[in-house]
Amino acid sequence: MTAQRDYAALVQRGLSLDLTRGKPSPRQLDLSNDMLKLPSSYKAADGTDGRNYGNLQGLTELRALFAPLIQVPAEQLVVGGNASLALMHDTVVHALLSKVPGAERRWIEEPEITFLCPVPGYDRHFTICERFGITMVPVPMNAGGPDMDVVERLVATDASVKGMWCVPKYSNPSGIVYSDETVRRLATMPTAASDFRIFWDNAYAVHHLTDTPAELADLLALATAHGNADRVFVYASTSKVTLAGAGVSFFGSSPANVEWFLHNTAKQSIGPDKINQLRHVEFLRDPAGVALHMLRHADLIGPKFELVDKVLTEQLGGLASWTSPKGGYFISLEVPHAAEVVAKAKAAGIALTPAGATHPYGKDPDDRTIRIAPTYPDLDELEQAINGLAVCVRLVAEERG
Amino acid sequence: MTAQRDYAALVQRGLSLDLTRGKPSPRQLDLSNDMLKLPSSYKAADGTDGRNYGNLQGLTELRALFAPLIQVPAEQLVVGGNASLALMHDTVVHALLSKVPGAERRWIEEPEITFLCPVPGYDRHFTICERFGITMVPVPMNAGGPDMDVVERLVATDASVKGMWCVPKYSNPSGIVYSDETVRRLATMPTAASDFRIFWDNAYAVHHLTDTPAELADLLALATAHGNADRVFVYASTSKVTLAGAGVSFFGSSPANVEWFLHNTAKQSIGPDKINQLRHVEFLRDPAGVALHMLRHADLIGPKFELVDKVLTEQLGGLASWTSPKGGYFISLEVPHAAEVVAKAKAAGIALTPAGATHPYGKDPDDRTIRIAPTYPDLDELEQAINGLAVCVRLVAEERG
Repeated sequence: MTAQRDYAALVQRGLSLDLTRGKPSPRQLDLSNDMLKLPSSYKAADGTDGRNYGNLQGLTELRALFAPLIQVPAEQLVVGGNASLALMHDTVVHALLSKVPGAERRWIEEPEITFLCPVPGYDRHFTICERFGITMVPVPMNAGGPDMDVVERLVATDASVKGMWCVPKYSNPSGIVYSDETVRRLATMPTAASDFRIFWDNAYAVHHLTDTPAELADLLALATAHGNADRVFVYASTSKVTLAGAGVSFFGSSPANVEWFLHNTAKQSIGPDKINQLRHVEFLRDPAGVALHMLRHADLIGPKFELVDKVLTEQLGGLASWTSPKGGYFISLEVPHAAEVVAKAKAAGIALTPAGATHPYGKDPDDRTIRIAPTYPDLDELEQAINGLAVCVRLVAEERG
Repeated sequence: MTAQRDYAALVQRGLSLDLTRGKPSPRQLDLSNDMLKLPSSYKAADGTDGRNYGNLQGLTELRALFAPLIQVPAEQLVVGGNASLALMHDTVVHALLSKVPGAERRWIEEPEITFLCPVPGYDRHFTICERFGITMVPVPMNAGGPDMDVVERLVATDASVKGMWCVPKYSNPSGIVYSDETVRRLATMPTAASDFRIFWDNAYAVHHLTDTPAELADLLALATAHGNADRVFVYASTSKVTLAGAGVSFFGSSPANVEWFLHNTAKQSIGPDKINQLRHVEFLRDPAGVALHMLRHADLIGPKFELVDKVLTEQLGGLASWTSPKGGYFISLEVPHAAEVVAKAKAAGIALTPAGATHPYGKDPDDRTIRIAPTYPDLDELEQAINGLAVCVRLVAEERG
């Protein structure tokens, strides 16, 4: 009965808290406020005028800055607008409507297209597939990344498998980092489709929470060394480095894929916002500048991750399991009857990402995964929200016996 | 023989001048340098934090500022990134892959799609059609816009005609402004296709060169009044108002089309760069602020248009005809054997947009149109370039007898 009493008290408090989306907090955004007065010069390193049209690939100096951080040679990097999601969406569109290197035909002409989706995963990846009628096949995640036995079997035997979504570092939502072995197998595995692509969404490449940053093997280099260079599409952005709505994004790949991408993008744009690129170069300076800036983020959000872990340990030991990521933006909570827990929380004024959102078609077959996004609320609100969530977990456990 | 001697002298000078693209000059871009230190606040008018994710439609205050200028109600306007070309491209992509309101099927499923292309027109419009295999049918331009007898007949009888490109004000490259009668007929004409769309690229809505700005009838309002609201897609941008590479773009349409557009865009982006939107609002303030700013542009480029007209009159009276636009970015020169003239100019170090670029598939059947872009060079370079161009016209005339 304790949980029922606690839940009644929780509802009475009339909370209105939001743990749904991985947004930086205002204090994190404050770290980049100096950018609002930049750039101090509109001249690019090559002397061109950053204010005018042109330079579809993006400024050399910005590509050089991020090349080592996201493991793509600068000459194979393209700088995009404020959303790497748009680059991913548009790459799929380009592949649907213009043959990717190695393809027999445009994807739109294929009778079926299948993407492998490690689960739990990122709902916005799945939404892109749903929009275009791409069949999604879930692949379970292990401690070192997706179950590679399953992946290897599917890509080797099914030529309709044209893509695979990966968030390889501090994965959304589990925080898992792909092991060297996983990356090696992804780079070298035989595929039935000649135009298979790994969508390598390295969204949290520099988003460490500890003093021992995770190392991720270099997929593009490995794939290239094994004759599979065209297999890899790399994405990244500064949305959670500088300003969430006003960052820059990156697409990186093999020379053939980059040429294909730019050929298609040239129909869409005369060039990116190079003033915002200059702003980023001047503010972040170099890889060491990025690392220092990310330490300041970690100082702000590290305590939030620790708080969630502490409250869940105190309240739910034995009743649930959860991840303790060393970076990224999310914690994955595994509980029985997840959908019911989310509904109870909602009724008590605590908004959580819908149960199932971490799975293709919004369907978590085990009804177990809840994504917790701890970065936006302040510590006090977060503590209330996680305590409230724990009450809901206990209530459902009690009611379900 | 005069022309041959003049051409030999021209070649000897070893010029390197570029009249190809409609780029603002550095002095025009200087007019907006104060933007590089803005915004002074990241708060939007509604109190939200412009730095974070969200607000797919764009800031209310920026939509309100541009609504009267581009003749779309603010609530039916969407703010995009730095390129209205991307909005046009993506609208075509959305229509190919997701049914537009009123359509029987997605355009990709149609056996044939046809777009009407008033000529001379804008090469980047044509490039979008070519990429997606959309058949282009040229329609001749008259003094008041496209030949509406031709347009009305084609859209009424051919259901494959799904689109029409229009630059209705200071048209690229002729500078023509669509007459009230043309706009009225576009708004009211019966169409065989239920999902016919006018791509109304109002790129030069506020780009006047004289004290008597051209008035353009309100296509969206007229179409709405006649039950054809969904027919109109409006585009505009500040690329030639503030900074060419770092402006904002606009898409406007009927409520049903805007909902369709945002539904699709939501798969592509979490929201636009609202910091750049705030920057624009703070810098331009209101419609009067835009008008004042555009007067400063006119002060810089008006003399360039006058110079072109003066040189052509002095050098080519009787040998060619050209337009004298009251706004926009281009002058259209009509001469016999245009391709040969362009080749001669190139050999003399004067780069012109390829002859034919103003027509679908790069084919000008009369080989007559040369697009002159006078804004980028300074007056001295421009004078040299136009004098050189005139020599080439005279040379070809002389050689061809």
